[in-house]
Amino acid sequence: MKLKFPGEDHLYLQVAEGVEKMIGDDILRIGDKLPSVRMLSKEHGISMGTAFQAYYHLEGKGLIESRPKSGYYVRFNPRRFADLPQQIDPGPTPIEKVTNQDMVMEMISRMTSHEIMNFALASPSIELLPAAKLSKSVMHALRADQHHCLQYEHAQGNPELRKQIAKLSFNWGGKIKPEDVLITSGCMEAVVMALRAVTTAGDTVAVECPSYFGIYQVIESLGLKLIEIPTDPVTGIDLDGLEQAISKHSVAACLLVPNFSNPSGSCMPDDRKRKLVQLLTQKNVPLIEDDIYGEMYFGRQRPRTCKYFDTEGIVMYCSSLSKSLAPGYRVGWIIPGKHMARVSTIKMIHSISCATVTQQALAHFLSIGRYEYHLKNLRKALHTQCLRYTQAIMQYFPEDTRISRPQGGFVLWIELNKHINTYELCVEAMKHQISIAPGSIFSNNANYSHYMRIGYGKPWSDKVDKGLKTLGNLVKKMS
Amino acid sequence: MKLKFPGEDHLYLQVAEGVEKMIGDDILRIGDKLPSVRMLSKEHGISMGTAFQAYYHLEGKGLIESRPKSGYYVRFNPRRFADLPQQIDPGPTPIEKVTNQDMVMEMISRMTSHEIMNFALASPSIELLPAAKLSKSVMHALRADQHHCLQYEHAQGNPELRKQIAKLSFNWGGKIKPEDVLITSGCMEAVVMALRAVTTAGDTVAVECPSYFGIYQVIESLGLKLIEIPTDPVTGIDLDGLEQAISKHSVAACLLVPNFSNPSGSCMPDDRKRKLVQLLTQKNVPLIEDDIYGEMYFGRQRPRTCKYFDTEGIVMYCSSLSKSLAPGYRVGWIIPGKHMARVSTIKMIHSISCATVTQQALAHFLSIGRYEYHLKNLRKALHTQCLRYTQAIMQYFPEDTRISRPQGGFVLWIELNKHINTYELCVEAMKHQISIAPGSIFSNNANYSHYMRIGYGKPWSDKVDKGLKTLGNLVKKMS
Repeated sequence: MKLKFPGEDHLYLQVAEGVEKMIGDDILRIGDKLPSVRMLSKEHGISMGTAFQAYYHLEGKGLIESRPKSGYYVRFNPRRFADLPQQIDPGPTPIEKVTNQDMVMEMISRMTSHEIMNFALASPSIELLPAAKLSKSVMHALRADQHHCLQYEHAQGNPELRKQIAKLSFNWGGKIKPEDVLITSGCMEAVVMALRAVTTAGDTVAVECPSYFGIYQVIESLGLKLIEIPTDPVTGIDLDGLEQAISKHSVAACLLVPNFSNPSGSCMPDDRKRKLVQLLTQKNVPLIEDDIYGEMYFGRQRPRTCKYFDTEGIVMYCSSLSKSLAPGYRVGWIIPGKHMARVSTIKMIHSISCATVTQQALAHFLSIGRYEYHLKNLRKALHTQCLRYTQAIMQYFPEDTRISRPQGGFVLWIELNKHINTYELCVEAMKHQISIAPGSIFSNNANYSHYMRIGYGKPWSDKVDKGLKTLGNLVKKMS
Repeated sequence: MKLKFPGEDHLYLQVAEGVEKMIGDDILRIGDKLPSVRMLSKEHGISMGTAFQAYYHLEGKGLIESRPKSGYYVRFNPRRFADLPQQIDPGPTPIEKVTNQDMVMEMISRMTSHEIMNFALASPSIELLPAAKLSKSVMHALRADQHHCLQYEHAQGNPELRKQIAKLSFNWGGKIKPEDVLITSGCMEAVVMALRAVTTAGDTVAVECPSYFGIYQVIESLGLKLIEIPTDPVTGIDLDGLEQAISKHSVAACLLVPNFSNPSGSCMPDDRKRKLVQLLTQKNVPLIEDDIYGEMYFGRQRPRTCKYFDTEGIVMYCSSLSKSLAPGYRVGWIIPGKHMARVSTIKMIHSISCATVTQQALAHFLSIGRYEYHLKNLRKALHTQCLRYTQAIMQYFPEDTRISRPQGGFVLWIELNKHINTYELCVEAMKHQISIAPGSIFSNNANYSHYMRIGYGKPWSDKVDKGLKTLGNLVKKMS
């Protein structure tokens, strides 16, 4: 392994960011030749290696390209993004019957095939995950545990894993203790238990619009009503709208994805998170915070969580390792604040505990620092993929296509010409072995039938490129 | 490995059973000397080895004992069991509020300590489980799966595991196809999903009395009412009582443990199972059949299941590997009959899928025949432990103690003098580092305060002997 001096990691990034800024400011334009590597090295007083690294980084992001025997050229201007998708008002009335169930189930049944080019998923490609090292942690767990992982785990979850998860919360400034954490079978079980703990059938839950289709399904399956609150594609849920909803209707809980919401990609600025928590504390409404994408940020710093601003224990924080490390291990957690006792009871009654071996393996993986290391690589890869997919969509799709600009997570939220029905597009695309998630499944009330979600969890390849090109052509045909 | 000829396995058992019958019929009495091994071999025309094996088997069961330099003597007469515990009528009215919650939670919190002599559990000791071979199957799964078990498993469960579970149903005459099976996180999740699929809050569920405390907790947590049906300690639920309850009240589902019910140990005879299924089919009431103990039978043949008699798909069969193979793996299943679509949806919405690695490991373990082999040993061990514990309780407890005679499973159901409060006994026993399950937690309506449940999952040892002796002395003091 190469020795790394502190700050060296930063140097090439600093240089790359300088070049990126010049492209953004139109000082360097698309097609312009960049200074040679030797020149860059001289100008900045850096080694040739660092100069190369800076260009590799920009090339990875798709911003520049190397032309054989000629050097590096500007390829893409990240400031020249397509317009953002527009916000749609879902209307102010709670809904009792969720109607998009059938479409979702049909879509999911299609998604199972491994043959297809699957843009419908919001999760990482397996090749981005540290498979061999995780397997080693499993073997370590089997050897190290005196009961060979055969014993039931504590209902609240493996103590070492809870300690590691408490440590993870440092990343967003949290002061969480291991006893504040309860391990669940993925984030979805955490959300279900949170809802069960603070609602009963017939209650109303406030959600973002658009929201992840799984949230609508859970709410319906628990016999709850829902009210959708308009949500800005950049800054998240409309706080005034939420306040009005709470005043007018009896809202039993609020269920949000404040960081890199799915599908819109919005990330609530921290001061809005603070206001949200203040509002809900004042109104005595529990906030179920789904932070499953929080660690997959592209910027310099992890966004804070609502839990960070929670002084009274009203935030029930839910997350998992399914999107960032090991989907098939089914390990998530909840930090349920003042509702811990109720959540513990529900967990114990309904499934006793989660699998022992996966919990112990992940506890080991996290405790030796491998997770933080992996996350750094994953974030870079996802950022690159996000830009690459965006560029390709801008290139292949009609000009009036609007694309979200997520600063983290796995998905692009795309608005097409309003005459295009993305469910029909979905059916057409399937004939070409391509799957997408049609917009209609992300709301029950607002009309997102000309929207769609594209997941960029799969690393860039010719096959991905071809898939997006085909999709673009289908859209053009339907225009 | 030693070669085994077909039938050889039977020979020593045949001889042992002959001796056992003579003891039972009082032809051989307690203290009588048995024929020498040489004599036995000659008389039956069997090898010395087989004769030894027959005596070892009887010694393991605690029926005979070897005295140094003297030979084998009759030690215990299995026909001279204590009286059976009595049935208590819970009364005919559905109950809305389950009241024993606090006692259960308190008891469970006590059970977590590994230091104590734990008679409160209804599960096998880890030393009875094939730990090393299971670990090998985990490693095999990690190597064999192209995605290293990182991918989400099918929502319905790993196909190979479902195939193996379908094959397991041959044991009770079932004709189950892999697509009839859905994998769950243990049997409890299966039961919860079955209840969710066929009931809504406010509905009434019929259960045995006594029933496993977890069943009361689940029913309460789902906002359901319950009606307890009198249950015979040998033949199970009273069918007339059940029919009356269904006629008088609107019963949405019936939730039973027909094979080796917990705590009573009752096993419904097959013809009663048939009648039960006919009755429920006719009344259109779904039967949730918890068969978690079905494979742990002591007799020559596995008892049938209600599912076997189910022609219309009304039986929702639930089971798991948690009691027989790998508690910490959290793998169970449901065969939900005509309710499959609803159950599948609930599973997918609430937890997406179960952990991949544990499913694939168990699929491998079952597919190479290791489970059947392990079960044979486990059954023998449990039968022996059951007899040993029974004998010790008869020896150490007051004469009026009544003890169940389970033909399978993990627990003895014990009735003490009715002036004794087993919750107080439980508190006293805890001071001696011994835990038991007090009778009160196994019903909401009937008064089982002088009953208790003793688990015999731990192999016989001096420590177990001492624990039961201490317990007996405590009971005597309280008499």
